[in-house]
Amino acid sequence: MSKVRVHNLAVSLDGFATGEGQTLEAPFGHAGTRLMEWFFETRAFRSMIGRDGGSEGADNAYASAWAPGIGAEIMGRNKFGPQRGAWQDEEWKGWWGDNPPFHTPVFVLTHHPRPSLTMDGGTTFHFLDATPAEALARARDAAGGLDVRIGGGPTTVRQFLDADLVDHLHVVLVPILLGRGVRLWDGLESLEDRFTVEPVTTPSGVTHLTFARR
Amino acid sequence: MSKVRVHNLAVSLDGFATGEGQTLEAPFGHAGTRLMEWFFETRAFRSMIGRDGGSEGADNAYASAWAPGIGAEIMGRNKFGPQRGAWQDEEWKGWWGDNPPFHTPVFVLTHHPRPSLTMDGGTTFHFLDATPAEALARARDAAGGLDVRIGGGPTTVRQFLDADLVDHLHVVLVPILLGRGVRLWDGLESLEDRFTVEPVTTPSGVTHLTFARR
Ligand SMILES: NC(=O)c1ccc[n+]([C@@H]2O[C@H](COP(=O)([O-])OP(=O)(O)OC[C@H]3O[C@@H](n4cnc5c(N)ncnc54)[C@H](OP(=O)(O)O)[C@@H]3O)[C@@H](O)[C@H]2O)c1
Ligand SMILES: NC(=O)c1ccc[n+]([C@@H]2O[C@H](COP(=O)([O-])OP(=O)(O)OC[C@H]3O[C@@H](n4cnc5c(N)ncnc54)[C@H](OP(=O)(O)O)[C@@H]3O)[C@@H](O)[C@H]2O)c1
Repeated sequence: MSKVRVHNLAVSLDGFATGEGQTLEAPFGHAGTRLMEWFFETRAFRSMIGRDGGSEGADNAYASAWAPGIGAEIMGRNKFGPQRGAWQDEEWKGWWGDNPPFHTPVFVLTHHPRPSLTMDGGTTFHFLDATPAEALARARDAAGGLDVRIGGGPTTVRQFLDADLVDHLHVVLVPILLGRGVRLWDGLESLEDRFTVEPVTTPSGVTHLTFARR
Repeated sequence: MSKVRVHNLAVSLDGFATGEGQTLEAPFGHAGTRLMEWFFETRAFRSMIGRDGGSEGADNAYASAWAPGIGAEIMGRNKFGPQRGAWQDEEWKGWWGDNPPFHTPVFVLTHHPRPSLTMDGGTTFHFLDATPAEALARARDAAGGLDVRIGGGPTTVRQFLDADLVDHLHVVLVPILLGRGVRLWDGLESLEDRFTVEPVTTPSGVTHLTFARR
């Protein structure tokens, strides 16, 4: 069976995967870019946004595992954009421009479904009001036998972990204290019973934690 | 000036440095021994309790830094024992038997002071109702020019970090999720602005984080 994978999920030492106060200008709220600096340096990220160069060491190796073998993504509505409640602006097509880096179907979980959006480069956004298990069934259908990525944010990843639907979880621990925002780890006591966990610190100063289902 | 140091402070991935429900039989509550397994394996710990053997690698190197250069410790009343409120049992002399491993004056912070206890091997427990700065002044006097260790638990360490009195903080991140207990990191947003942070993962699977004052 295809796997359910989470990649490059950056978390502060105090457990926040995003800050407080998301806006159009600040997708991570008061966290700014602090959770993602390690990622922006990598060749994997730079090539994703059409740039040359970037680091080629361990951080890049982890970052590069994001795309291969993935046939669909599931994300939360707050990763897709800063609007809350009913959509005021249906022109909003995500943070990523006309050609988003996903290149697969993407299922956006929301209590406010809207028509699908077909973008350049193979990305289609579908809006879905569904339980994690239902959303996963839809994404698996669309993935053509490939794996499904749970793309975040923390509220969404936490739901899939809670429902025991995740096979591979890659978390990047950034040694900062955000103090506030959305926590990843709440309600997941003893998660390690279901996974082996391998931590690796890299020269950039982050620690990659790979949780693999036992 | 002598330094203020924290060593071997074990924290779960979700930020808890002790579990819920401390009792005489379970000093770390529902966390059991899970936060301290890495430490129990080390030669440093085994020699502390009069045993031979133990690991001699990186974990032991970190663990061994606990004693040298220390002239006094400050600890919280819950590290000293499981009683709360007024002392019902003044016979209680800590978890460590007649010859505790400190071998220096130890200042126990409590709102319920009681007479000092002179133990074998150079440890004296003094009970002190004081602010962190006042307690530190007392401990510095007693330390004879040597460093002062803040011994925990998390409530006590957090107070000293909050008052910006800590020079060196060694935290051991254990890749488990305790789910509940006492958090270390609350109220310390942007602590990294005051410290350089060096994370190192060791083969036992823990990650040592050394915070050194900038
Ligand atoms: N640290 C990282 O690596 C990383 C990765 C990705 C994203 N992020 C950041 O994380 C933030 C977003 O995370 P978040 O935790 O706030 O939100 P999120 O997980 O992106 O989205 C949560 C929202 O999605 C909808 N939703 C989720 N599950 C649903 C379900 N089962 N059924 C129906 N609707 C559902 C709900 O919105 P409605 O009820 O409003 O429809 C919910 O409030 C953003 O700031 C993003 O930049 C960080
Ligand atoms: N993870 C580790 O490496 C590590 C290290 C050490 C200890 N521990 C564990 O941590 C737990 C204890 O931690 P904790 O956070 O619950 O408590 P703690 O820090 O040991 O003690 C807190 C208590 O000390 C007293 N106190 C603290 N500051 C004071 C002040 N400024 N003035 C007067 N009294 C003060 C108060 O007690 P009263 O008001 O009742 O007097 C307060 O409730 C234990 O389970 C221990 O085993 C873990």
